[in-house]
Amino acid sequence: VPVVGVIGGGQLARMMHPAAINLGVELRVFTEAEDSSAHQAAYRVGDYLNLKNLEEFCHGLDALTFDHEHVPTELLRELEDLGVAVRPGSKALIHAQNKLVMRERLTELGLPMPAWQRATSSGEVEEFLNQHGPKIVVKTPIGGYDGKGVRVIAEVTEISDWLSDLNRFGGALLLEQKVDFVSECAQLSARSANGEFKLWPLASTFQQDGVCSEVVAPYGAPELQEKAARIAQRISEGLGVVGVLAVEMFVTSEGELVINELAMRPHNSGHFTQDGCITSQFEQHLRAVLGWPLGDTSLHAEFAVMVNLLGVDQENNLVDHFPAAMEKFPGIKFHSYQKLPRAGRKMGHLNLVGQDPKSLLAAARAARELIYNKGQEV
Amino acid sequence: VPVVGVIGGGQLARMMHPAAINLGVELRVFTEAEDSSAHQAAYRVGDYLNLKNLEEFCHGLDALTFDHEHVPTELLRELEDLGVAVRPGSKALIHAQNKLVMRERLTELGLPMPAWQRATSSGEVEEFLNQHGPKIVVKTPIGGYDGKGVRVIAEVTEISDWLSDLNRFGGALLLEQKVDFVSECAQLSARSANGEFKLWPLASTFQQDGVCSEVVAPYGAPELQEKAARIAQRISEGLGVVGVLAVEMFVTSEGELVINELAMRPHNSGHFTQDGCITSQFEQHLRAVLGWPLGDTSLHAEFAVMVNLLGVDQENNLVDHFPAAMEKFPGIKFHSYQKLPRAGRKMGHLNLVGQDPKSLLAAARAARELIYNKGQEV
Repeated sequence: VPVVGVIGGGQLARMMHPAAINLGVELRVFTEAEDSSAHQAAYRVGDYLNLKNLEEFCHGLDALTFDHEHVPTELLRELEDLGVAVRPGSKALIHAQNKLVMRERLTELGLPMPAWQRATSSGEVEEFLNQHGPKIVVKTPIGGYDGKGVRVIAEVTEISDWLSDLNRFGGALLLEQKVDFVSECAQLSARSANGEFKLWPLASTFQQDGVCSEVVAPYGAPELQEKAARIAQRISEGLGVVGVLAVEMFVTSEGELVINELAMRPHNSGHFTQDGCITSQFEQHLRAVLGWPLGDTSLHAEFAVMVNLLGVDQENNLVDHFPAAMEKFPGIKFHSYQKLPRAGRKMGHLNLVGQDPKSLLAAARAARELIYNKGQEV
Repeated sequence: VPVVGVIGGGQLARMMHPAAINLGVELRVFTEAEDSSAHQAAYRVGDYLNLKNLEEFCHGLDALTFDHEHVPTELLRELEDLGVAVRPGSKALIHAQNKLVMRERLTELGLPMPAWQRATSSGEVEEFLNQHGPKIVVKTPIGGYDGKGVRVIAEVTEISDWLSDLNRFGGALLLEQKVDFVSECAQLSARSANGEFKLWPLASTFQQDGVCSEVVAPYGAPELQEKAARIAQRISEGLGVVGVLAVEMFVTSEGELVINELAMRPHNSGHFTQDGCITSQFEQHLRAVLGWPLGDTSLHAEFAVMVNLLGVDQENNLVDHFPAAMEKFPGIKFHSYQKLPRAGRKMGHLNLVGQDPKSLLAAARAARELIYNKGQEV
């Protein structure tokens, strides 16, 4: 039986499990805690920053992959030296772990990016503000996610705390031009360990407070889709990615794409593929890291939409109110991550396919409202 | 978190697991053996014929359901008396456990059946042979599956062993007219504990040596589909089924339907729903036993086909050769039950959706051949 190990017990590892069960692949998850979202596939619980733990976990794996980007490159290199099939490999993954390394490398590849700069002093920040202000974006190169580690500033004093604590972020900050965009999109793709590359349809993404909120696919005119496809393929092949790659991009008023973020794993912007496509991002990721041929990424219908379910409070676990929404919306697919409820926490999502994106989104939002309001119409 | 318990660790329990993970339902499987197909969801391993074991297992369940029909009615009644939500209940399930009880009850409901009779002596068998011969079908009322417990006979001596051992089968045999059919079909439906009823499209089924081999959906002219739908609903409501119901039927040359077998659980004839329909039989079964609203059963495409993967020998585990078939058929969905290989054993299946059933079947068969032949074209 093929065996895939996953470091991290979040919802992404959880959602690899159904795909693994179908394919007959054994999934072993290294989780941080007994009650993690992926607990049903937990094989080991403990500290994944300990090399000995990791070595033991990797015994018998056909491939090692990730639920998140938090395993330091040095540890991954040690595992690679021991012969573990780390996928994506440390040389690729560093670009998803460190945003400065990513900006440097994508600049070398000639890809469209916001103006950016490495900064270690308030002087450099002020100069960048003068050049690209009145507002700029400042990011911590490592450890950010879902809007964390990102600030839009007009004054250098707004990041005094970061500047006085640079060692936490690898010694520098990333400064970026604030891109004037009309929309955001994500190009999901996968590259197999055997080199095969496949794309899903370009998706339109909507963020709220830095967190992915809604996704609609497909998105954009053919020329935009081709641009996005070329960018994704250039990154995937240029960086030697193995597995799913999500490229989040801004669309400018001139119809140009500007790369915002990368992730080298299944990604929130690709959850629509679970119920919307022949092959989901979770199945494709497993195929890719095992070096298997990739599956058909076609949509099941003209359009697919996804809306995230965020925690309302510590009382409403959301899943208790799925039935109320199921009754009104028999075509919606319900996903719960089995997490303890907390306001703003990613708790699950809804998928829906059909012909008209507006009515699909309206239905998914209405279902979400029912769940948020404990089954009561408001 | 809603909790569903399943007795039996076969592939049907295994395939309920992805649906449970998506819905955020905790699935607890009571398996016979550590290495069962559903081992990743195993909560307890042991003897499910022991009431104390069952009682302990049922603690904390929102619903108890089944992978097979082998739990005696008396044990289920005891659990029901203790307040366990046994679904389907013992009063319904008995019709899927005992074919004589099924024939009696469906006759009462006025449903189309082959001529049949209860027999306890060779004289009764000879009389039935004279009336309905030259060949008749003899079935053991309990314990049969996949062609086991079924014989087509021309002479009473062909079942001497069964007649001399009647106690093994509940004291009698079931004699049936050998129906002259032009095709076979299966009507899959589900009924929720809340009374809601939903049908999937009628499916055409092909058996080889008594084992389901291939399925194509949808099947039949609208009038045939309506007949099948009425039969399924009458059985589901008449017998008080909760969960998925599969009704296997013969189609005669006059276009009449004759009921062959029933199953009150997800069924091989419904595996196409996993990748072919908005809601799979496994998800629907969980919704139904929890008393949740049922999901949309529409097909994702014009047609869906399924072909079973049977064991070739003790060497070929099939999954090792999935990649060879994946390379040629990126749209096929691969399912492995992670069972030890054995000739003729149900090891997995392939699903495929599209516009033309003939080319879909041809592709699925070609993929199956590649897997059977260890990735070599023949």
